[in-house]
Amino acid sequence: MINPYDDTYFMKKALQEAEEAFHKGEVPVGAIIVIKNKIIARSHNLTELLNDVTAHAEMQAITSASNFLGGKYLTGCTMYVTLEPCQMCAGALFWSQISRVVFGATDEKRGFRTMGTKLHPKTEVLGGILENEASNLLKRFFIEKRNLN
Amino acid sequence: MINPYDDTYFMKKALQEAEEAFHKGEVPVGAIIVIKNKIIARSHNLTELLNDVTAHAEMQAITSASNFLGGKYLTGCTMYVTLEPCQMCAGALFWSQISRVVFGATDEKRGFRTMGTKLHPKTEVLGGILENEASNLLKRFFIEKRNLN
Repeated sequence: MINPYDDTYFMKKALQEAEEAFHKGEVPVGAIIVIKNKIIARSHNLTELLNDVTAHAEMQAITSASNFLGGKYLTGCTMYVTLEPCQMCAGALFWSQISRVVFGATDEKRGFRTMGTKLHPKTEVLGGILENEASNLLKRFFIEKRNLN
Repeated sequence: MINPYDDTYFMKKALQEAEEAFHKGEVPVGAIIVIKNKIIARSHNLTELLNDVTAHAEMQAITSASNFLGGKYLTGCTMYVTLEPCQMCAGALFWSQISRVVFGATDEKRGFRTMGTKLHPKTEVLGGILENEASNLLKRFFIEKRNLN
């Protein structure tokens, strides 16, 4: 039987959020949180609009999912995020005890793996899902940004 | 001339915030952000009340100070926080480019130094200001918590 709810399906939803960010002039990163094939949080980077370095897509998604669940632990949940999380977001994911983190593009410079940030020992990680789509959107953003200034 | 606005003065203000958290049944950590001897943000841990692992004192203080300043960078600011920041909060401080972080008690287990989290190269760090006061409050909290359960 075909399962339509695979990692690619959900990463596409995160990419839609990243596109939202793009259209708002934000660094295009999107995130969703899923439990039992149900999306319980959708968010995109809003650091420019909110003037707030903490407004990464992942941080908002964690807050939103906790609010939905009525509890601060995200056991049983998966985050889909278009870019590898940074130290801050990986640190928040650590505290959340989320079961799975799936990301798209790798962030060689500021990603949590390069920076040595620890996730919770219970958290599984998978990278590279729709990596090209996520990184092309980021590249397009920075090229347009450069041409505008 | 005596300068009343030294690190101990401001750490006392952060400790008052930690006491607020204590009375609310939250892990007692408080933070303030200061620019030119003026307090522009005060906060304390609210992870239980908000059911949100991202609601650490430092995260709220960063959001609040950015809001006050109308910009996301905290250059020229000092954060006073009663406990050594964790990975998440140090990661947020990294993005904020804050000029100085002064903390009270050391967190040997989850503190950013043990965890290897990087602050911004421009950020100065000083630990141990009113360390005993901060750690005694934390110890008292965990002892009372244990006796209640």
